[in-house]
Amino acid sequence: MQREIGEIPDVLARMLSRRRTFEELAWTIRARAPRMLVLIARGSSDHAAIYGKYLAEIRLGLPTVLYAPSTTTIYGASLDLRDALVIGVSQSGGSPDLVEPMTRARAGGAITVAITNVKGSPLAAAAEHAIDLEAGDEHAVAATKSYVAELLALFLLVEALGGRDGEDARSIDRAAREQLERVDMSSIATRYRAVEQIVTTARGYAYTTALEAALKLTETSYLVAHAFSGADFLHGPVAMIERGFPTIAIVPKGRAVDAMRSVLDRLAELGADRLVIGEALPGNVHVPLVEVPEVVAPIVAILPLQLLALELARARGIDPDRPRGLRKITRTW
Amino acid sequence: MQREIGEIPDVLARMLSRRRTFEELAWTIRARAPRMLVLIARGSSDHAAIYGKYLAEIRLGLPTVLYAPSTTTIYGASLDLRDALVIGVSQSGGSPDLVEPMTRARAGGAITVAITNVKGSPLAAAAEHAIDLEAGDEHAVAATKSYVAELLALFLLVEALGGRDGEDARSIDRAAREQLERVDMSSIATRYRAVEQIVTTARGYAYTTALEAALKLTETSYLVAHAFSGADFLHGPVAMIERGFPTIAIVPKGRAVDAMRSVLDRLAELGADRLVIGEALPGNVHVPLVEVPEVVAPIVAILPLQLLALELARARGIDPDRPRGLRKITRTW
Repeated sequence: MQREIGEIPDVLARMLSRRRTFEELAWTIRARAPRMLVLIARGSSDHAAIYGKYLAEIRLGLPTVLYAPSTTTIYGASLDLRDALVIGVSQSGGSPDLVEPMTRARAGGAITVAITNVKGSPLAAAAEHAIDLEAGDEHAVAATKSYVAELLALFLLVEALGGRDGEDARSIDRAAREQLERVDMSSIATRYRAVEQIVTTARGYAYTTALEAALKLTETSYLVAHAFSGADFLHGPVAMIERGFPTIAIVPKGRAVDAMRSVLDRLAELGADRLVIGEALPGNVHVPLVEVPEVVAPIVAILPLQLLALELARARGIDPDRPRGLRKITRTW
Repeated sequence: MQREIGEIPDVLARMLSRRRTFEELAWTIRARAPRMLVLIARGSSDHAAIYGKYLAEIRLGLPTVLYAPSTTTIYGASLDLRDALVIGVSQSGGSPDLVEPMTRARAGGAITVAITNVKGSPLAAAAEHAIDLEAGDEHAVAATKSYVAELLALFLLVEALGGRDGEDARSIDRAAREQLERVDMSSIATRYRAVEQIVTTARGYAYTTALEAALKLTETSYLVAHAFSGADFLHGPVAMIERGFPTIAIVPKGRAVDAMRSVLDRLAELGADRLVIGEALPGNVHVPLVEVPEVVAPIVAILPLQLLALELARARGIDPDRPRGLRKITRTW
């Protein structure tokens, strides 16, 4: 896991050098003028898909459906996707509950694209077009470099669909390298050594980071980590917060900061322990983020949290590469 | 909260007697042949919206977008919804983060419908069409009868859109009454008196029930309740389960049972404490559900869990009507 996190800057640089691939694919897609985007994914890739939804809706105005695999695999739903762009996102591209809806979508006339890290995977074979993440083999059960590569792939594709050149991600590889060099999460991990529960929260683009951070912490450190959009959190779950309850707020510079300020104020009132990643809002511990445009901030904001999951597993005497009870490819239906 | 749960059968009966309203609205909507459904909601109503997504996708093949309010309220996204049916779902109809996207959707040419429990609410005023839940005033902070009314309203509307008469819900009011009469959750609540964390899980239509149960338990009993789709759960979060960890599986009779069987097998291997609501799958405690068609099972399956949230709050010395730190209408943006 440590090595794979360390490879992230190179993975990003490699993808940036292939921008032309995304532009060519976007050309083909735009010619068919899709009316909606449908994203098919699970686990960490589903968090990348949520980022993709925000991107497509904000940058393209394209309504985006997050596919619920049960509708097809359990109930045999047949969605009318004739004017949809359908993108499947998966590290392995091997999960049958993603391949089946992709196959159906293609048969139903959708423009289909698979984004996977395994060339010639079943998901890539099922789709008309495939983007290979080229992130290199991922061995640790917890996805790290493949997740970040998925984020950049979705960004480059959406920008190309919008006729933009992806300028906001121009130096994201260098920002990621700087972020990894600059941050040391081992002492922060010590703070959470005995913690059983944690809440992560964010708004806007960074919401995907809160979700993915919670999943990493849950997978590798066996604590119950729960992610909330800052708004949903205030609508109910905030009731669970007691004095000292550990919370992590992800607040990259940008338009979501004001909304997160009120979440952090509320957490302060309740006496929660607050780790703030990003802007210097009041908290107990603060981890700054390398400044990048807000739209690509999820690519760097997850890095300290992947490192936290790694260091926390170690601090708790767990092997982060082989967490209990998990397999790299989970076959569900 | 207790009184409002007790009113549910009457609320359902009243709505069934108004089926004609749904049919007339469906007639208007079908004439405009929407290409997608967009659901705008937050909190408990967002769980009803997820049920609406499953219904629309499975019963109508209509791709369904769950609206992410941040995209509009933080980033000013302007979705192209000219061929969309947009339904806003809210008990109060008063939250500005729902009214703004509804207003934009209507201006952008969408067919707009508000489903609220307050006649003439801002959300109802913003939409072209409004359905009043007629559930009566809801005073408890935790939504109960309004949530169940939203489920039935979405069911009746989707069925009418599919040219069906809602036969599957014909006697749902009687089933709800029987369910409430038959079940006593107070002794089960005692089992969870000292619990700090709980996981709820389900697949398919009942997934909304797992989400809503987790929210009720979190709101009223201050425990950290986390809902997972059975499939997502096996993809990672299952790592957090230790011997004796309290879990609740919601398994109404129907097509999702087989998928849930493998989730329960895995939980049994890990030594989790399992409360099974519905089918008699192996668990530590079993609460049967009154048998209704699977598609409407969420309407009865939530009832024992609302009662559990109520009884558990009492067992923990909390006033379920006024949980700490929550307001009935939360203004976020």
